[in-house]
Amino acid sequence: MIRSAALLFRENGYSGTGFRDVIAHSGAPRGSIYHHFPDGKEQLAADTVEWAGAVIERRLARAAQQGDPIAALGVFVDAWREVLEDSNFRAGCPIVAVAAEADAGSAATAAAADAFARWQDLIARTMLDAGIGRTDARRLATLVIAAIEGAILLCRARRDIRPLRDVHRALEAALRTAIS
Amino acid sequence: MIRSAALLFRENGYSGTGFRDVIAHSGAPRGSIYHHFPDGKEQLAADTVEWAGAVIERRLARAAQQGDPIAALGVFVDAWREVLEDSNFRAGCPIVAVAAEADAGSAATAAAADAFARWQDLIARTMLDAGIGRTDARRLATLVIAAIEGAILLCRARRDIRPLRDVHRALEAALRTAIS
Repeated sequence: MIRSAALLFRENGYSGTGFRDVIAHSGAPRGSIYHHFPDGKEQLAADTVEWAGAVIERRLARAAQQGDPIAALGVFVDAWREVLEDSNFRAGCPIVAVAAEADAGSAATAAAADAFARWQDLIARTMLDAGIGRTDARRLATLVIAAIEGAILLCRARRDIRPLRDVHRALEAALRTAIS
Repeated sequence: MIRSAALLFRENGYSGTGFRDVIAHSGAPRGSIYHHFPDGKEQLAADTVEWAGAVIERRLARAAQQGDPIAALGVFVDAWREVLEDSNFRAGCPIVAVAAEADAGSAATAAAADAFARWQDLIARTMLDAGIGRTDARRLATLVIAAIEGAILLCRARRDIRPLRDVHRALEAALRTAIS
């Protein structure tokens, strides 16, 4: 059900996805969603965000072991390029859907903030390993997450991968300057 | 009605805002929304995106006259900081709401792509004026739009202005490197 919710959120948004859609997509029995998520859609959204955040986090953690921020950036970009191209630009980031639409201060929004913070920490760690100072690493890691999430939206609006490619190149240049 | 739709989209998203909500918020007579937007919500969304895009565009056009990309960036950041802080982080960008949720290939999504492209052209123009080459200007202007839109989402999730401030500083550094 969480997997279905993630797929639906990233295409139809958080408000655009109902319990009914998740049940239909997952093929789960109707009662089970109320059993597993007694607090309702917000709880499902929080768990979905946590799951989707962890998928990217594992990829980033592997990349971070190399201590190369440009490689970590590449891993992050590649993950989203796949999502965009495989869906013909209909799917974006399920966590952005929740961050953009769920109530401020809800468990779902807090889970989104947490996922972004974990990604940012992993990317910042590769920057520290590459000799970038603490403040610059924090700023640049925030820039990477923000710019890639924003580029995903631009790509979907244009139905074209170029914004992501351009943002990738511009971020590589910024990282190279910070490392040198 | 367009103004109401923009306010509602940026807080509740595109799917989370119905015609009924726009009628209630604007105080317009019920029939008038069907009169003005016979093609339905997608038409309202397209017109709202065009209107909201033009508001930012006018600010950027004034800033662009100075030919200073760092000043233009500051204008763009300030516009969004106001929206975030005035709404206690409940409101984001109405155009992102549409880009994230409206159907790919719809008039509303096309209007979103058009608004982003107009902002990007204005920012790129200030970069060309400052002596940045054409390819770098295109990439950096895309980076500015993507990163600020992404930072708005991070700020809303965290209910904190710091992601926008960090992204602003990191973008300034990238622009300074490109200019020098």
